[in-house]
Amino acid sequence: MSNFYTMKYDDGVLTVLDQTLLPTNEVYIELKTVQDVYDAIKRLSVRGAPAIGVCAAYGLAISARSRINGDIGIMLSGIKQDAAYLSSSRPTAVNLKYALDRVLDVLCSMSGSYTPSDIIAAIEVEADRMRCEDANTNRNIGENLLSLLHDGDTVLTHCNAGILATTAYGTALSPFYLAKEKGIDLHVYADETRPLLQGARLTAWELCEAGVDVTLICDNMAASVMSTGNINAVIVGCDRVAANGDTANKIGTYGVAVLAKHFGIPVYIATPTTTIDMNCPTGIDIPIEQRDGSEVRTLYGVNTAPSCVKVLNPAFDVTPNELIAAIVTEHGILRPPYSQSLANLFNNPTHE
Amino acid sequence: MSNFYTMKYDDGVLTVLDQTLLPTNEVYIELKTVQDVYDAIKRLSVRGAPAIGVCAAYGLAISARSRINGDIGIMLSGIKQDAAYLSSSRPTAVNLKYALDRVLDVLCSMSGSYTPSDIIAAIEVEADRMRCEDANTNRNIGENLLSLLHDGDTVLTHCNAGILATTAYGTALSPFYLAKEKGIDLHVYADETRPLLQGARLTAWELCEAGVDVTLICDNMAASVMSTGNINAVIVGCDRVAANGDTANKIGTYGVAVLAKHFGIPVYIATPTTTIDMNCPTGIDIPIEQRDGSEVRTLYGVNTAPSCVKVLNPAFDVTPNELIAAIVTEHGILRPPYSQSLANLFNNPTHE
Repeated sequence: MSNFYTMKYDDGVLTVLDQTLLPTNEVYIELKTVQDVYDAIKRLSVRGAPAIGVCAAYGLAISARSRINGDIGIMLSGIKQDAAYLSSSRPTAVNLKYALDRVLDVLCSMSGSYTPSDIIAAIEVEADRMRCEDANTNRNIGENLLSLLHDGDTVLTHCNAGILATTAYGTALSPFYLAKEKGIDLHVYADETRPLLQGARLTAWELCEAGVDVTLICDNMAASVMSTGNINAVIVGCDRVAANGDTANKIGTYGVAVLAKHFGIPVYIATPTTTIDMNCPTGIDIPIEQRDGSEVRTLYGVNTAPSCVKVLNPAFDVTPNELIAAIVTEHGILRPPYSQSLANLFNNPTHE
Repeated sequence: MSNFYTMKYDDGVLTVLDQTLLPTNEVYIELKTVQDVYDAIKRLSVRGAPAIGVCAAYGLAISARSRINGDIGIMLSGIKQDAAYLSSSRPTAVNLKYALDRVLDVLCSMSGSYTPSDIIAAIEVEADRMRCEDANTNRNIGENLLSLLHDGDTVLTHCNAGILATTAYGTALSPFYLAKEKGIDLHVYADETRPLLQGARLTAWELCEAGVDVTLICDNMAASVMSTGNINAVIVGCDRVAANGDTANKIGTYGVAVLAKHFGIPVYIATPTTTIDMNCPTGIDIPIEQRDGSEVRTLYGVNTAPSCVKVLNPAFDVTPNELIAAIVTEHGILRPPYSQSLANLFNNPTHE
């Protein structure tokens, strides 16, 4: 499907594509310490909720390997500390905490006598499993989204919820890769997504690499494009879905959703079930990461604004559930009212 | 009010602040030929509908001076040719054509015997008059806008309709300079305005220079900021207003207006009467300049997107009249229905 990979783990070394250098340079970096993993997530070398979840899980394998020669109790408590540390690298994405908790749960459930090597192996098996699950999940999300589209449709997307944000297929971009496989003709408008330009640098790059028809626009061109009547749907990924369907995603998603409502275009949220946080009642309860103003004031070291000007730089916004036509998971398509459809999803015994 | 100027004309040399180098470098360039003037407008060293109108008028003075030693008939026909050439530098702004036509009308109305020097003097007098009128017009627009605001209000603006877009005060930014003079407390959120970042480079710069409280945001943050309830009004300039009130302005204005409607915030268009084109029935009749995709794909020479990706880059969009709460001119505040209020404005004998 593509000639690049988001991450690869081998014998205690997690190799990731440094997404901060795209689209100009395709550089892979080796993460060998917990600090390396934390930094890679923090500075967005690895980004996208599913990708950072799996990345953090491998981070705990690296943590365990660094503690192989210690006492088991000290080793386990060190891994827990590292999990808390990795969890603090990005506060908004729920997958990060989910992935780390899942690894810690595996360790808690180990019984009988075991060695440090057993711990390392258990973590690595669990991290590998998460990576495979992510690929399957994303393929299923893509199939479900594809059922909402028609041959010839044009879709607008924001930020990057593609292969680069996951381990394979992506979430919001998954239907375009599947359509390519199936010979279905789809077109994409990609918002460039300021300030970090994930749409321009990443979405445009990965879709071009795969030969998907993509047109890049600035974020502020969405209304103009939608007004022509040529956009059939908006599909975006997300960083956290609250129990009532309010959805946190990259800053700008809220605006796109308001525009889509105005122009009568459906907004579909592509999300693995793991990104749905039933412990978070509404969007108000989702913490929004505020990032440094220098990301807006400068670009590639050049001042794009006076250095003294105040800047607001929220990394995410929360799209209210009433602007969302469907939340599309690996298990199916959820429709409003989401409080009910999401609760049903999690109460359904066939869900596992 | 400020320590810089947009343009200054002296003895056949038009000195302009090169806005492409802001906010880092405050560099003035001397325009000595019609080609210099055309290029300065084309590459956006001078931009903003009122500013390019006055700039083009001085361009005709430069044209006349270069023809001082020729036959009067050849001189006049050369000036007309240069007017057509200058008019083609930016197709959307109606002021450009208005300013050039106004100078040509002065030449047409000259009677009796006159010399090449008389022609030059007539053009220079008319261009100077336009510059003074622009300053007075903008001050009046500012007073009218200020009557719509309250002490402590916060206003969101898009692109740059400030001093830099005019010869003084600006249009959309005029109320903030007047408020500063009067001790009224106003706050501004400035959209950075991709792709050319006029909001970041110019609006943030000139408001900071004048000590106006300004916060810079990326275009895609407007919905998030508006959702907090802290924005009392949107004020933007414009490049052309059609007879029904449809308004062409910098790309992104349409989206801001849709968001403002969603959040119940009034949108005010700041415009000199000269930007209203009663010969243009609706927004559909306004030509929209499409600019090169490289403006979106690269920034300061760095690739922000794969070089092969398709790009849409309209310089303007048209905000439908139903999204506009008022059109504010130097003569007063126009309210919907605009077909009627605009017609009244132009039919009012006190208008002149």
